[in-house]
Amino acid sequence: MKLLRYGQRGAEKPGILDNNGKIRDLSGQVDDIAGESLTAAGLAKIATIDVGSLPVVAELGRLGPCVSRTGKFICVGLNYADHAAETGAAIPEEPILFMKATSAITGPNDNVIIPRKSRKTDWEVELGIVIGDEARYVTEADAMKHVAGYCLINDVSEREFQAERGGQWTKGKSADSFGPIGPWMVTRDEIADPQDLKMWLSVDGTMRQNGSTKTMIFGVSFLVHYISQFMSLQPGDIISTGTPPGVGLGMKPPLFLKAGQTIKLGIEGLGEQTQLTVDAA
Amino acid sequence: MKLLRYGQRGAEKPGILDNNGKIRDLSGQVDDIAGESLTAAGLAKIATIDVGSLPVVAELGRLGPCVSRTGKFICVGLNYADHAAETGAAIPEEPILFMKATSAITGPNDNVIIPRKSRKTDWEVELGIVIGDEARYVTEADAMKHVAGYCLINDVSEREFQAERGGQWTKGKSADSFGPIGPWMVTRDEIADPQDLKMWLSVDGTMRQNGSTKTMIFGVSFLVHYISQFMSLQPGDIISTGTPPGVGLGMKPPLFLKAGQTIKLGIEGLGEQTQLTVDAA
Repeated sequence: MKLLRYGQRGAEKPGILDNNGKIRDLSGQVDDIAGESLTAAGLAKIATIDVGSLPVVAELGRLGPCVSRTGKFICVGLNYADHAAETGAAIPEEPILFMKATSAITGPNDNVIIPRKSRKTDWEVELGIVIGDEARYVTEADAMKHVAGYCLINDVSEREFQAERGGQWTKGKSADSFGPIGPWMVTRDEIADPQDLKMWLSVDGTMRQNGSTKTMIFGVSFLVHYISQFMSLQPGDIISTGTPPGVGLGMKPPLFLKAGQTIKLGIEGLGEQTQLTVDAA
Repeated sequence: MKLLRYGQRGAEKPGILDNNGKIRDLSGQVDDIAGESLTAAGLAKIATIDVGSLPVVAELGRLGPCVSRTGKFICVGLNYADHAAETGAAIPEEPILFMKATSAITGPNDNVIIPRKSRKTDWEVELGIVIGDEARYVTEADAMKHVAGYCLINDVSEREFQAERGGQWTKGKSADSFGPIGPWMVTRDEIADPQDLKMWLSVDGTMRQNGSTKTMIFGVSFLVHYISQFMSLQPGDIISTGTPPGVGLGMKPPLFLKAGQTIKLGIEGLGEQTQLTVDAA
């Protein structure tokens, strides 16, 4: 299933993409794509719905973030060997974890807002894991049972805020609009192998990232297992699993975003995003 | 006002402490101590209530976290000059920010759960700022208008997970129960000077931390201003402002928590917490 949310910011309704590419209104069936609806039991209930009987959304308008009430937005740093190399960092021995503010979450095609005083706003296409059932001290063998599905994420990053303003990356990862997620969450059963998905990102039509989840250092099941040793994962939590090579910071000379540019990105099977960059008011 | 939440985990009700030290039920007046109730308008509305007319809570049972639906739990590292010194770190030039998982939030007197494989679980008494109205690019002069109030926090930390398991402190700050907050949120008007509050923490009756917010490097109004340059602050977000000297990591030799110990901590005007340490199941 491809689950999504549509409508104005703060007033999104849940929806589902049908087999003909039409969006159907799920608001009569579930309160939101969040919490209990994302557990195995919640998704099983949605799977029993006759999608063809649901109202077609005639005027789509805006797509919202595909998941709501996310409690944690956990990111994995330097999780592609080639990306670690382009930033000059060593291959990590264990996953590097940091948090993005949940207030950074935005719709897949909303504007990306370049923060005031930013000089180094950068892009990162990433595979997102959406947690279903709570995960606490889970084994790698059991980890996938806790995954509701996957989504496309642009882990927008301000490199100067991240690395040149005094410790801890969260400072450069958390601005409003720095976390477009969607267009939809694709349930786990529809992705045969999350470690074999092509992914790409372009800026103003020039391809900048062109990789595959094949080159991830720590894969999906290991990450869920690993993170669950340090904190409990709750329904609707999102893990952004790192980016392949091709970010602006890695270019020689480095190249960063400015207002008026168009970012497009996609992951095989998970859809695409398009964002316009604008300056913060 | 002293606002709080009481009842079983996940089913807490809002309450208020009256002038006689009795807890009164606020659930007929507000849905929770969260979101809109924490804005200036929300707090002004609560202030009009005749507290004496509210039902007294006869059987208090458990105190929950004093604030609910916290979207971000932002912490400031090494924000007391003496604490930076005891950990061997330099005085930061700008605030060091990191995130604690919101799933770490727990009631003020709930057990502190020592994670599996932990050898270095440590304590940190901290002054917490609770955000009221949204703050985005606020000046230091305007910052206090965005503060709903203050609360006591134990920023429980696992030092090996924090610093010896590969980059970024969040890994050692986010375990379930690592964020006791409360007993209550004291509204800003009741704290004459947040930079002149005595604070202390004891373990099994031995005083370990005994300081004052006077020695904070970056104070409350500067922190709200500063953080709002990097991310928007939303109602119910919490900023934990750092700890004074006396943590286990700073002792010679270092001393860490084990199961069966009792932690007590307090801040002048903000009440006290008592926690029993237990091993993770």
